[in-house]
Amino acid sequence: MPFKSVAVLGTGALGGYYGGLLAQSGADVHFLLRSDYEHVKEHGLRVDSTQGNFHLRSPQIYGSPEDLPPVDLAVVCWKSTVSMGPLQKALEHCCRPDSVVLVLQNGLNVERQASEVVGAENVLGGCAFLCSNKIGPGHIHHLDYGAIAFGEFCDSLRGSVSPRMLQIKELFDRAGIDMRASPDLQQVRWKKLAWNIPFNGLSVVLNADTKQIMDDAQSSKLARDLMLEVQAAARTDGIEVPDQHIEKMLDDTKAMVPYDSSMRVDFVQRRPMEVEAIFGNPVRAAQARGYRPHKIEMLYEQLCCIDRLNRKSS
Amino acid sequence: MPFKSVAVLGTGALGGYYGGLLAQSGADVHFLLRSDYEHVKEHGLRVDSTQGNFHLRSPQIYGSPEDLPPVDLAVVCWKSTVSMGPLQKALEHCCRPDSVVLVLQNGLNVERQASEVVGAENVLGGCAFLCSNKIGPGHIHHLDYGAIAFGEFCDSLRGSVSPRMLQIKELFDRAGIDMRASPDLQQVRWKKLAWNIPFNGLSVVLNADTKQIMDDAQSSKLARDLMLEVQAAARTDGIEVPDQHIEKMLDDTKAMVPYDSSMRVDFVQRRPMEVEAIFGNPVRAAQARGYRPHKIEMLYEQLCCIDRLNRKSS
Repeated sequence: MPFKSVAVLGTGALGGYYGGLLAQSGADVHFLLRSDYEHVKEHGLRVDSTQGNFHLRSPQIYGSPEDLPPVDLAVVCWKSTVSMGPLQKALEHCCRPDSVVLVLQNGLNVERQASEVVGAENVLGGCAFLCSNKIGPGHIHHLDYGAIAFGEFCDSLRGSVSPRMLQIKELFDRAGIDMRASPDLQQVRWKKLAWNIPFNGLSVVLNADTKQIMDDAQSSKLARDLMLEVQAAARTDGIEVPDQHIEKMLDDTKAMVPYDSSMRVDFVQRRPMEVEAIFGNPVRAAQARGYRPHKIEMLYEQLCCIDRLNRKSS
Repeated sequence: MPFKSVAVLGTGALGGYYGGLLAQSGADVHFLLRSDYEHVKEHGLRVDSTQGNFHLRSPQIYGSPEDLPPVDLAVVCWKSTVSMGPLQKALEHCCRPDSVVLVLQNGLNVERQASEVVGAENVLGGCAFLCSNKIGPGHIHHLDYGAIAFGEFCDSLRGSVSPRMLQIKELFDRAGIDMRASPDLQQVRWKKLAWNIPFNGLSVVLNADTKQIMDDAQSSKLARDLMLEVQAAARTDGIEVPDQHIEKMLDDTKAMVPYDSSMRVDFVQRRPMEVEAIFGNPVRAAQARGYRPHKIEMLYEQLCCIDRLNRKSS
């Protein structure tokens, strides 16, 4: 089955950017929006990007999951903090029995919810390596990077690149998205966590952007120490995060324009932070296998408290 | 030797309060000031306290350490972040060979600097259990508590309450200060650290006052976990911090009016935080004896980074 129609669930920094590129390339893209619906209906979707700005004047948008048409591919771009209800409703409306769901959320085991609705065999997961922010209603600012590494979620399909993965890759590649098919989604996830855990966590606790963290000898060492704990935690999951990967992430982050992690943006805007997906799930996975990542544990507990205090005082 | 004349080094939340009470009781008190000198010269020293407000119209004040007269007792009330230079100069000017120095700073091993100047046998240390802030030049706001637990610093004098300790106690008692003579200064220090480490540290990292920390189940558990690590670290130093002490501190803090720890006040005012005295020294002491207090270590590293970033951006 070639993938022609796409539903983008969540049209923010992630969904607005990738969905925008797909629509721009001629794909049949259906955007689900919430608060920005009226604005985008009137003004369209705007993407400012170092790769070239573009503006979709009349994208196919929906303000309610019930209105979504059936599609070949549903891409989950919401934050992992969105509750199960809206996801279930959206997938029930846009998925046929042969539809495929691609979960692009941050963290570990974030495919669980979608797989409960459509079955694990219809779910893929992916990590976006993307610096992008929503800077206004229907207005995305893409700063840097943009690759997506993705793979099969279902245990029985893991270990190789499936034919449908190549079809999805073709669709995204046509839109100029660097789509990397991986035989091992868990490795993709742990490798991404090796960035997210230090830089999302420290950016909030230290109140610092990526440049400030990397410019200070002690905070960049702390970032590295956290990466090494992620590496050790991944090992208990049978996953190797190579040393070179850690060095490359540190080098890339040092070379990157100063960037506010998505968690820091959520914190500053007093929105729920993705603490459970990015910290809680990996910590529990490691602990269940007898490894205690002490620094990540402490950061996790702190972030839980900060998240609650932050939303209370809003 | 009865203690009659007192030099108060540092006239802030701590020195202004205790020195003010001593002067108010008729003791011969000499205050060393820095930035507030001109203001106090003109307007005097004002203490607002739940125990009764008072105002010293013309306290004996000095703007420079060289001007201090020799005294029987020098009380070090500066923050531990003040460098060695001013302390050395002040002690050289106000100490005779038989003068005694009482170091009231927070943290562990903070008596080292004074003992290098006047000799360990002339040094005592103490911990103030005090909620007090300086709210303006020469203006102290005392909120709650006020006891001082103190003891001999010199190894050869530890283990009992010395005669000079009783004389110092008499002097302070006369001023209405609850002065508790302890035969074991190290225990006093570790017991105080059991409060300072959780509440100073978490107040900065979580951006919360004592009430917010105690009202949340997870942050109050984090405070308790940090106290248990202090207890374990103290044990490696041969010191027992009793379980009842930990429970009492938690109960007292829960019952206390919402309070910004001294470290949080320093943080908010972009002043240096007492990270090394309160965190660095205890962490190194524990590590040197083979114990790793993981949560305190993480907090210590975070606070070092926060302190640097905080002063950079001022």
